[in-house]
Amino acid sequence: MKNSPTIADWGEFGFIEALRERLPKASGDLKLGIGDDAAWWTPAFDHGILTTTDMLVEGVHFDLSYTSAADLGYKSLAVNLSDLAAMGASPSCVYLSLALPVRLEKVWLESFIGAFLLLAKEYGVQLAGGDTVQADQMVISVTLCGLALSGKPILRGGAKVADDIYLSGTVGDSFLGLKLLQGGLQVPDALNQSASFLKNRHLRPSPRIALGEMLAASGAVSAMLDVSDGVIADLNHLLTAAGGLGAELDNIQLPLSPAGRHFLAAEQVDYASLLTGGEDYELLFTASPKWRAQIEMISAKAAVNLTRIGRVTAVEGVFVMAEDGSRITLCIKGGYDHFQP
Amino acid sequence: MKNSPTIADWGEFGFIEALRERLPKASGDLKLGIGDDAAWWTPAFDHGILTTTDMLVEGVHFDLSYTSAADLGYKSLAVNLSDLAAMGASPSCVYLSLALPVRLEKVWLESFIGAFLLLAKEYGVQLAGGDTVQADQMVISVTLCGLALSGKPILRGGAKVADDIYLSGTVGDSFLGLKLLQGGLQVPDALNQSASFLKNRHLRPSPRIALGEMLAASGAVSAMLDVSDGVIADLNHLLTAAGGLGAELDNIQLPLSPAGRHFLAAEQVDYASLLTGGEDYELLFTASPKWRAQIEMISAKAAVNLTRIGRVTAVEGVFVMAEDGSRITLCIKGGYDHFQP
Repeated sequence: MKNSPTIADWGEFGFIEALRERLPKASGDLKLGIGDDAAWWTPAFDHGILTTTDMLVEGVHFDLSYTSAADLGYKSLAVNLSDLAAMGASPSCVYLSLALPVRLEKVWLESFIGAFLLLAKEYGVQLAGGDTVQADQMVISVTLCGLALSGKPILRGGAKVADDIYLSGTVGDSFLGLKLLQGGLQVPDALNQSASFLKNRHLRPSPRIALGEMLAASGAVSAMLDVSDGVIADLNHLLTAAGGLGAELDNIQLPLSPAGRHFLAAEQVDYASLLTGGEDYELLFTASPKWRAQIEMISAKAAVNLTRIGRVTAVEGVFVMAEDGSRITLCIKGGYDHFQP
Repeated sequence: MKNSPTIADWGEFGFIEALRERLPKASGDLKLGIGDDAAWWTPAFDHGILTTTDMLVEGVHFDLSYTSAADLGYKSLAVNLSDLAAMGASPSCVYLSLALPVRLEKVWLESFIGAFLLLAKEYGVQLAGGDTVQADQMVISVTLCGLALSGKPILRGGAKVADDIYLSGTVGDSFLGLKLLQGGLQVPDALNQSASFLKNRHLRPSPRIALGEMLAASGAVSAMLDVSDGVIADLNHLLTAAGGLGAELDNIQLPLSPAGRHFLAAEQVDYASLLTGGEDYELLFTASPKWRAQIEMISAKAAVNLTRIGRVTAVEGVFVMAEDGSRITLCIKGGYDHFQP
């Protein structure tokens, strides 16, 4: 029996050469991509360059037992696109560094790169550089640059008292998808289709680039971030960045997908987990109530549902208005700390 | 006995907060550094942005048994500075991503960051973003951006037939330093001082930023790269990038430090190893002979020794002119491939 070729058979320079052949020639603002000591990028320059970087580690951020090479290639770029979406920026150039085990199969890497480049192409992003090294544990480091085409990027610290709070799409799907992938949820036959949808939401999140660009262009948004730590944790980040404001949520039922509602109704998951599971990669933002009509129009144009989930208050903390008009303090330990159990 | 606090005691957000307190406020062209979804950089823009990225892996690129936290913090940035030096660029913003074992001591990380930021300050570089995650094996990913202030950056592919070939500083020191650190060399008492010098050349290479900037400003240089894979391997890269040219070296004795010569004379190392060991982080470049006087002036101004080691030829391959005028083909397998044994 012949083993599949590994990247050791290919070699570092073999891989880089294959990658170069596969890449479109550096074009437009990118004067020089892979192959020199540095990439050379000359954007038609208006209001600055936005740069974000994320590092993904095998066994921490992803599990190769249920994540395909293509899913991982997609997601490595998608999570960075989501960060640029949260600034209202347009992505341009990306740098990809890979620490890979020597025994990794060549076809695995080809599939990873294929999906990464396909998503890059979809968003007009050029792969401009990177590094490839060996390691026991796989580590993926992506740095993505983009432009604030519409003017000033949208920072996370600009929320004002009485601003509306909006959330794009639905939350909790990625958490449920992860549980399903890990085999931690029973799936009744009736929920098979929902299960596929949820797994996909975990493995292939849709970066909200077009929505972010439209919101930035509108001038309506006072603060924005993407929901990666869980919606309550990220709402807290937004309120803290505004200098310590609070929020009143209209209804504890934040937007859930039909699939999410099924699993909640079947008591397969508790509500709090959906709000703290994280990795939703939706946009959370604030805007003065005077912009409501514009924001509805943007939602329609971007074909992304936007839910007004509450409003910013001067009192620190996140509260929920109960049915009887009383205020309940929402006390959900949120987010993920990489060094704490 | 109380254990030292680890980064688990500190927490990811604790570390980021401590880092933010330590950083100077984002200033100049950097409008927004650490703390949002992306950094926002608005350089006074002339001829483009140069970006380089390097990934360092524990046990592959560094060994914590003889590399201090401060040495590693220094070197993680220095190797990227060297890449920008090889473009003739001026460094500006850096992004630092760290995959760290949870048991890592807090003081270790503080020392790493301290040395990283000290070198950054020396070169006018602002830490603008990054990521911090956990892993079993330590991985450091640095992405560095700079500007081509002098105009066009110097690419590696521009060498012409009959151009002089220059090398800054000395080669082989880092290789000897590494062998000494690994305990693979006997050190006679008389060579103790040399040994310290060589170890330092491995652990704390000097990025040739000022030299690179001056060479770029002069317009004299046709091609340049930094020597990271070994001088012969990198010379081959330069000649290949020029479309397949060759080189004739005047003398097999490439510039060695007095310390390097000591170990060579003591037959503790063979000459070929000094040329292929790599990690010299010197600049290798080509220039038409008409620029010799200017290049001598730049050498004096930058206080870096430049040696004219040979010239570019139309015939592929690297040859050495022997004493009797005959040509010897230099056949040294060069460079390091990350996936090949």
